[in-house]
Amino acid sequence: MALISPSRRLRRTPFSDGVEAAGVKAYTIYNRMLLPTMFESVEADYRHLKDHVQVWDVAVERQVELRGPDAGRLMQMLTPRDLRRMLPGQCYYVPIVDETGGMLNDPVAVKLAEDRWWISIADSDLLLWVKGIANGYRLDVLVDEPDISPLAVQGPKADDLMARVFGDRVRDIRFFRFDMFQFEGRDLAIARSGYSKQGGFEIYVDGTELGMPLWERLFATGEDLNVRAGCPNAIERIEGGLLSYGNDMTDDNTPHECGLGRFCDTQTAIGCIGRDALLRVAKEGPVQQIRPIEIAGAPTPSIDRAWPLMAGKTRVGQVTSAAWSPDFNTNVAIGMVRMTHWDPGTVLEVIAPDGARRATVCEAFWL
Amino acid sequence: MALISPSRRLRRTPFSDGVEAAGVKAYTIYNRMLLPTMFESVEADYRHLKDHVQVWDVAVERQVELRGPDAGRLMQMLTPRDLRRMLPGQCYYVPIVDETGGMLNDPVAVKLAEDRWWISIADSDLLLWVKGIANGYRLDVLVDEPDISPLAVQGPKADDLMARVFGDRVRDIRFFRFDMFQFEGRDLAIARSGYSKQGGFEIYVDGTELGMPLWERLFATGEDLNVRAGCPNAIERIEGGLLSYGNDMTDDNTPHECGLGRFCDTQTAIGCIGRDALLRVAKEGPVQQIRPIEIAGAPTPSIDRAWPLMAGKTRVGQVTSAAWSPDFNTNVAIGMVRMTHWDPGTVLEVIAPDGARRATVCEAFWL
Repeated sequence: MALISPSRRLRRTPFSDGVEAAGVKAYTIYNRMLLPTMFESVEADYRHLKDHVQVWDVAVERQVELRGPDAGRLMQMLTPRDLRRMLPGQCYYVPIVDETGGMLNDPVAVKLAEDRWWISIADSDLLLWVKGIANGYRLDVLVDEPDISPLAVQGPKADDLMARVFGDRVRDIRFFRFDMFQFEGRDLAIARSGYSKQGGFEIYVDGTELGMPLWERLFATGEDLNVRAGCPNAIERIEGGLLSYGNDMTDDNTPHECGLGRFCDTQTAIGCIGRDALLRVAKEGPVQQIRPIEIAGAPTPSIDRAWPLMAGKTRVGQVTSAAWSPDFNTNVAIGMVRMTHWDPGTVLEVIAPDGARRATVCEAFWL
Repeated sequence: MALISPSRRLRRTPFSDGVEAAGVKAYTIYNRMLLPTMFESVEADYRHLKDHVQVWDVAVERQVELRGPDAGRLMQMLTPRDLRRMLPGQCYYVPIVDETGGMLNDPVAVKLAEDRWWISIADSDLLLWVKGIANGYRLDVLVDEPDISPLAVQGPKADDLMARVFGDRVRDIRFFRFDMFQFEGRDLAIARSGYSKQGGFEIYVDGTELGMPLWERLFATGEDLNVRAGCPNAIERIEGGLLSYGNDMTDDNTPHECGLGRFCDTQTAIGCIGRDALLRVAKEGPVQQIRPIEIAGAPTPSIDRAWPLMAGKTRVGQVTSAAWSPDFNTNVAIGMVRMTHWDPGTVLEVIAPDGARRATVCEAFWL
């Protein structure tokens, strides 16, 4: 791992003081902001996440806020997912596509009211696309990045910890729904969501000044639950098949290639900018698609570029995320594979930096 | 400094193998790509840059390419600088603003032909704004990010090194002009430009596969010129008053606040999206502006957030870049200061993490 030079451009978060005090060991940069990647070790963090409860600084999930009479119309222009039945209080995972159907982001849309939405973004300046579209189509909507910073509480004991701070009503929040809760006299949206498969919540912390008080309250309240600072875990998210925009897919890929065809209602989401292109894709089907891949041998080195997937001398895809899984005792990976070789059980070769290894296309992620 | 975890999302460049072999010690992330920040030490790199010649991997200056009949019209919509007299072969520094006059980027526009432009961007996904505007206004133009990676050759011996590789004709390139030169049978645009005040060139390397051959040719050819791998230098760029988007300014700031009013032809650049807002700003003048700031005392710590500038108990601005300058024997800095306190000679206090220090507003940068 290399060192990173400090600069204001790589923004701190409302929780950075807590993250540092908890002994963060490494970061990534995500939306021009610091995102922790490791506290004790990736393996120890993984074990703890699966057994206990962690508090994650995911302020990097910046919000794009849409406000005004055309907010709903604009939201539908951005995504091929049909939003007509979505109610305030719901969260939808929404692929965002350009006019060719290329993925620009894969965020979660949060519907606060008919005329007010948040888009909780992955790693690209989606704000600029949304502002450009709103301006170009002369929509009656305000688009900006408010001072909202998500804090995630993840792991099997997340309900218990959250109930102690926000009351038992948090237990009633259903998956991908949110409700409003008070903290220090302020109303905060809390959703049952998060970038792990261990269950938990995301708190949309409204105002930088609330960050550290909430962080400290969670840790003080959860001491006997063995609460720790954590972060999205490379092993756990690959096991669970949670994609990473910029790693597993880019704007070169359609949602169908990413296995997100079920979020594309191209027959009904007719307001979507990329609808025509995706209708074509839906008809013909993608020629390559995301697959779970098992890589043989000892733990793979860190992955910092796409590793080619070969069938003999022909390149038939690439691996873009990989990690050693202690629970499944193998290297778990995510790859994009051409249709000629994407059937489960197909044995390929992956060219890792330390040599070629056997790579097997799997039926399902490791859940 | 913290460690950064490797990932495909933090993209390598065509020159990364060379950068690593040259012993890079630290990076920043810029446009989701690795940008070296230090080789020997920031001070040693600084000395060498001012005395010799360096090759910089600035592939992070991604290009937004505009192609088609509406390319020129779109380019003018993006910036308040009047482009009507700009000729193919010229480069213009162009503030890019949204409809409120807020800075979205401060790139260099490269006019290849009437219907073909590159925008060589600073750190924001300007591609998304440009694509959104092109789509919303239904312009007849293709917008994408081509496989172009700038490589800079900077320092007093830059002309000599470049002439050896590309011939003496490179010496004739005027400041902020470019011409076409051959390398391995390929035509490359070479401009006299770069993010230092030591003189030099930027080579727009067209095709990843050309990256390492060109890198190696420059080093093999320049051995007796003491050529080294380098990078934009924090000290030198502050001395020279070269602003950094995301550090010294954000989308909260107008070009006028950034001291870029001379690039705003609000009377004539009537196609610009932010023109109306900037006309208002030009009339009334900004209430805060970028200033060179001298900070007293020992070398300041690294700056990773804005440091408040105080006049007694009133906050009157902030410092966003700072470094110890060996040549000027003081801490040089860039700050944004309110008009009540921006006159040269005004003595303020800056709140650095290790305590308050005397901060003096200067007349000019250190050139």
